[in-house]
Amino acid sequence: MPTAPKTTATPRRGRPGYDQESVLQVAVQVFNRHGYDATSMGMLADELGVSKSAIYHHVPSKGDLLRLALDEALVPLEAIGQHEQALTGTSIQRLEFMLRSTIRVLIERQPYVTLLLRLRGNTEIERQALERRRSVDRKVTELMITAQQDGKVRADIEPRTTTRLMFGMINSLVEWYRPDGPATPQEVEENAIAMIVDGLRARD
Amino acid sequence: MPTAPKTTATPRRGRPGYDQESVLQVAVQVFNRHGYDATSMGMLADELGVSKSAIYHHVPSKGDLLRLALDEALVPLEAIGQHEQALTGTSIQRLEFMLRSTIRVLIERQPYVTLLLRLRGNTEIERQALERRRSVDRKVTELMITAQQDGKVRADIEPRTTTRLMFGMINSLVEWYRPDGPATPQEVEENAIAMIVDGLRARD
Repeated sequence: MPTAPKTTATPRRGRPGYDQESVLQVAVQVFNRHGYDATSMGMLADELGVSKSAIYHHVPSKGDLLRLALDEALVPLEAIGQHEQALTGTSIQRLEFMLRSTIRVLIERQPYVTLLLRLRGNTEIERQALERRRSVDRKVTELMITAQQDGKVRADIEPRTTTRLMFGMINSLVEWYRPDGPATPQEVEENAIAMIVDGLRARD
Repeated sequence: MPTAPKTTATPRRGRPGYDQESVLQVAVQVFNRHGYDATSMGMLADELGVSKSAIYHHVPSKGDLLRLALDEALVPLEAIGQHEQALTGTSIQRLEFMLRSTIRVLIERQPYVTLLLRLRGNTEIERQALERRRSVDRKVTELMITAQQDGKVRADIEPRTTTRLMFGMINSLVEWYRPDGPATPQEVEENAIAMIVDGLRARD
C-alpha cells in the first residue's frame, strides 16, 4: 500500500499553536458541519479562537482552504491508480487493489473525503475537484469493464451500474464509520472485499 | 411484492389544484433542497404559490408535514418485514426478499426516503422516525445473523459490519439513481442482488 503523500504546502510560520495543517483540520470540520457555502472566515476564526487576520496569515482565502482540504482527499485517491499494483497483475487483482486502497484512504482521510463527497459544484474550485473525483471513479469503471471482458468478472452484471453500487457501499463509510466503534479498519476492508469481490468474480 | 399502502390521511378539501398529497410532494422537495430546519411554512407557500393559511388548511404544522412525509417512506419499509415472503422460506431467501423490497421502496419513494436518511434527530418527530428506521434495519441485521448461523451466509464475515456496508450500497441509490438515467429499476435491483447475495452466500 502506498504511503499517502503529504499534500499541504510548505508550512508558513503561524500564530502559536497553529500551523497551516491544524488550521486545515479545524476548517474541514466546520465545512462539514455547516456546509462550505454557509461557512465564513469569521466562523473559522471563532472556532480556532483567533482573529480573521491570523487565518489570512496561513491561507489567502476561504477558497484556498477548500482547495487544500480537498487535496488531502484527492491526492491520495489519485495516487492509487499510479501504484505498481494498480498497473500490474490480473484485472481482478488490480480491481481488488484499487478497492482496498480506496477504503483505506476513506478511513484515513475521513473528514476530507466527506467534504469531497458532499460538494455541490457551486464554485470553480469545487467543479475542478469534482472533475478529478470523476476521473478517479472512471479508472475503476474502466477496470471493471476490462475485468468483465477478461472473463474475471461475471458476464451478467452491468459494469457501470455495478461500479456505482460498489462506490455507494464504499463511500458510505465516511458517513457511518467511527474509529472508536466495534469494527477495525482492517475488518471493514475485509468484509467489503468479501462481499464485493466474491460477488463479482466469475464462477468456474 | 406488497403494494405500498397509501399513508396520507383522508384528504380534506383544499384550494383548487392542491390536495394534501400534492402539498406533501412539494414539501418533501423543499425539505430535501434546504433541509427541514431551514424550511419555513412561508417558503413552502411561496413554492406552492399559495398563502400560508392555504397550507394550514391541509396540515396543522410543519411538524405534521414532516411526519406525513416520513410515513411515505417508513410505512412501506415497515410493511416489508410483515410480508409473507419475509416470514417464510429459508433465511437467505427471506434476506433476498427484504433486500429486493427495500431497493424497490427506495426507488419508488426516492424523495421521501432521502428525507428519512438525512434526518438529524433535532426534534421528537425526527427521533421517532429514526427509531422506526433503526427497527427496520435491525430486522435485516438479525436475519443476516440467522442466515450465518444456518450456514447460508459465509462464516468469515461479521454480520453487523456487513449489513452496514450493504445498507450503504442500497441507501446510496437515493443520492445517485435517476429514473431518466440509463439503468432501469429492475437492472439496479438485479445488479445489487447479484453483488450482495452471491458474495454472501456460503459456497458448497
